[in-house]
Amino acid sequence: MVIKMIDELRSKLGKNKVLTGQDVQERYSHIWTMDQPLAAKAVILPHSTEDVSMALKICHAHQQPVVVHGGLTNLVGGTKTLRHEIVIALEKMDRIEEIDPQSRTMTVQSGVILENIHQTAESENLLFPLSFGAKGSAQIGGVISANAGGLRVFRYGVTRQLVLGIEAVLADGTVINSLKKIIKDNSAYDLKQLFIGSEGTLGIITRAVLKLVEAPRSRTSAYVGINDYTQVISFLKFMDKSLAGTLSAFELIWKKTYHKMTTAGESNPPLPYDYEYYVLVETLGQNQTTDQHQLIALLEKAIDQKMILDAVPAQSKSDLDWFWKIREDVRVISASCTVDQHFDVSLPIPLIGDYAANTIATLEKMNGVNHCYTFGHMADGNIHLVIDKVDHSDQLRMAIDQVVYSPLQAMGGSISAEHGIGEHKKAYLKLSRSPEEIALMRRMKKMMDPLGILNMGKVL
Amino acid sequence: MVIKMIDELRSKLGKNKVLTGQDVQERYSHIWTMDQPLAAKAVILPHSTEDVSMALKICHAHQQPVVVHGGLTNLVGGTKTLRHEIVIALEKMDRIEEIDPQSRTMTVQSGVILENIHQTAESENLLFPLSFGAKGSAQIGGVISANAGGLRVFRYGVTRQLVLGIEAVLADGTVINSLKKIIKDNSAYDLKQLFIGSEGTLGIITRAVLKLVEAPRSRTSAYVGINDYTQVISFLKFMDKSLAGTLSAFELIWKKTYHKMTTAGESNPPLPYDYEYYVLVETLGQNQTTDQHQLIALLEKAIDQKMILDAVPAQSKSDLDWFWKIREDVRVISASCTVDQHFDVSLPIPLIGDYAANTIATLEKMNGVNHCYTFGHMADGNIHLVIDKVDHSDQLRMAIDQVVYSPLQAMGGSISAEHGIGEHKKAYLKLSRSPEEIALMRRMKKMMDPLGILNMGKVL
Repeated sequence: MVIKMIDELRSKLGKNKVLTGQDVQERYSHIWTMDQPLAAKAVILPHSTEDVSMALKICHAHQQPVVVHGGLTNLVGGTKTLRHEIVIALEKMDRIEEIDPQSRTMTVQSGVILENIHQTAESENLLFPLSFGAKGSAQIGGVISANAGGLRVFRYGVTRQLVLGIEAVLADGTVINSLKKIIKDNSAYDLKQLFIGSEGTLGIITRAVLKLVEAPRSRTSAYVGINDYTQVISFLKFMDKSLAGTLSAFELIWKKTYHKMTTAGESNPPLPYDYEYYVLVETLGQNQTTDQHQLIALLEKAIDQKMILDAVPAQSKSDLDWFWKIREDVRVISASCTVDQHFDVSLPIPLIGDYAANTIATLEKMNGVNHCYTFGHMADGNIHLVIDKVDHSDQLRMAIDQVVYSPLQAMGGSISAEHGIGEHKKAYLKLSRSPEEIALMRRMKKMMDPLGILNMGKVL
Repeated sequence: MVIKMIDELRSKLGKNKVLTGQDVQERYSHIWTMDQPLAAKAVILPHSTEDVSMALKICHAHQQPVVVHGGLTNLVGGTKTLRHEIVIALEKMDRIEEIDPQSRTMTVQSGVILENIHQTAESENLLFPLSFGAKGSAQIGGVISANAGGLRVFRYGVTRQLVLGIEAVLADGTVINSLKKIIKDNSAYDLKQLFIGSEGTLGIITRAVLKLVEAPRSRTSAYVGINDYTQVISFLKFMDKSLAGTLSAFELIWKKTYHKMTTAGESNPPLPYDYEYYVLVETLGQNQTTDQHQLIALLEKAIDQKMILDAVPAQSKSDLDWFWKIREDVRVISASCTVDQHFDVSLPIPLIGDYAANTIATLEKMNGVNHCYTFGHMADGNIHLVIDKVDHSDQLRMAIDQVVYSPLQAMGGSISAEHGIGEHKKAYLKLSRSPEEIALMRRMKKMMDPLGILNMGKVL
């Protein structure tokens, strides 16, 4: 039966597109576990939408579970693969089909690596604003499936806001082509929303039309010291209002995290360790000189008004690199941990200060926890926690989960702002979503994939 | 049977919430047909989500078709009601539950009128950016159901981008509460997307959390004259790039439309009738003086570069009102028509010039067509056409539909950029969406509303 299915896949797709045996074992299921050989029945490497459709038709007919592999950078076990599963890996679908500088769109296959999209956009003086640490490996299909966020969501939105069109293949091989490069389309249901953020459980994305923006010509940044969380909010509102559209990032780093980021790695601290909160602001504009003057004037005003206590603006390109390396190089934190455990929670902006303070206090009193590091996209209501703990035990992991997740429900928060649910957070989904919501999600899954072959056991 | 159901509704909801007989006939189904009494079995006026849920439970048990009424400003027959249907009208659910200046959110019941949302936001120096002509009547539930667009989509997005949370009631009365006021939530499927833009066919929206932005403190505008459509695109890119985030509107008006708008109504023309295209630009910023200087400097540069031929900036608040009245008061066009027929199409920005030229040429040669007026949200790829024709005949209407709609499919356009499908455009949906897409939409409808009682016969 299995042999027959593999034969059928080979004969319909071509032998080179269906890997088995040793060729499968030379692969892996996540960039962090490259040393562990992939266990899967086969790996299919489609070159086109037609290939994906054919592969799914055959798998569907055989009720064969399928796992979708992109750049394998997912943080929630979204690409974990079992021995009896077949992998569909999109890496050969890596073609940028069109860049249209007038429509300001790019049409890509789903296996294109995010960084290549950035470079192609830049070649036309355009910007695809979505960016995050794993941009050199992450494929756009996975980025869309995960509805990725990143550092400039405040200005440009999450992935969902940056995708104009999608082509996807349903579990039974049906191709849904909603690939228009128009900005507004109210011709009945917006089907692309089904595929964005559903982590490959409702269909496999094969192509997309991305929204680009005119590339900025200036960039300014500053670190700011504040002692009081309510002042952080005031400062956000003040900067957002005053900058009228050019504020592109507003990252918050708690004192202990800032200290670790600027001592454990190669970076020096731009500001002394005198403050409870460090804010890294960024503007993207068109004139470096006037934008820099404006930033400095605003920081001076904020100091005069006692909204902030100290500030240091980046004065050069190398300052910009220095400032951002501190924030972006989260590996410095992870590397300092005995064992690290990561979180990615979302909650209403006014509640972040108390939530973080209480969570840190509880965790750091807990047996087995060394430290709790907090930082994140505060203007998006999204903070990350990295817990330094003593071991990998399930008991400790779950005790920490409990402390981090349990207050969120009452606060109207979410257990995942941007990383998704995958396998790792399934047990906690009920803290973010009501039974009625989860029941409706199950009906959606059943409607889209009645046999349940797509990314089985993930998300729901 | 009917009497039993009405009795049940009355006993469960209270008599004052269930209108029948004369009370029904005193109502209407659209603000343009106030003289035509509403024909419906009953009108339910829920005061709460629980009321909507109870009403739908009862209707569902009786397989009773339901039509949702909001502000009745829909342009595609979305609130058309038949004698055997029951209306659920949201007007009593008009409470603004919370405005949170720190989260920059507003939580509202779905019957709140858009203009009240604007005013409440303003009272906290915030802005709900979505706006259009019918804001004094349109209710937010309908606005969201229609995924409305309007004049500032270029900067702030369509409704879909401005809704953080939704509570909706399914056909069987199940309440789906996804009402969080967080900006990022990747905890499984984003259910609110089901209800946004599905025109009330998948559930009745009862409450929403809206995203607000800091209110701008400056506003500038100008009319610009251009003869060549490719220069219109160049000018859009130039302004967008140079203004780095403050460009808020870029409206295009064709010569003939501009002439009519500035002769048939009360408004004088800000520029002479010398150009093929008139662009109305707007910026929203923080400093009136510097923003005005910047606008003028950019316009001068664009003239020097021969990108544009002429420009006149608004110099005062009354200029701003004058400039925008010309564009917004579309009734001037409609009133000049013998019979008017309206369109709202979407297509890739580079194709708009030729599409409009060819469509106008074909229509104006057609028997029964007097004039064709074109204008719209060019930066969103969305143009409106108003056809001045001689009669109401179906034959003429359909012949005009054919000319306007038939080129869109090959261009990757849409028959509806922002007004939706409703009843009026159902016959043409296949020109915007593939058979596979429509089949999937039908499965969605079936999954959400198996008995098909919600807004029956609309959209699909």
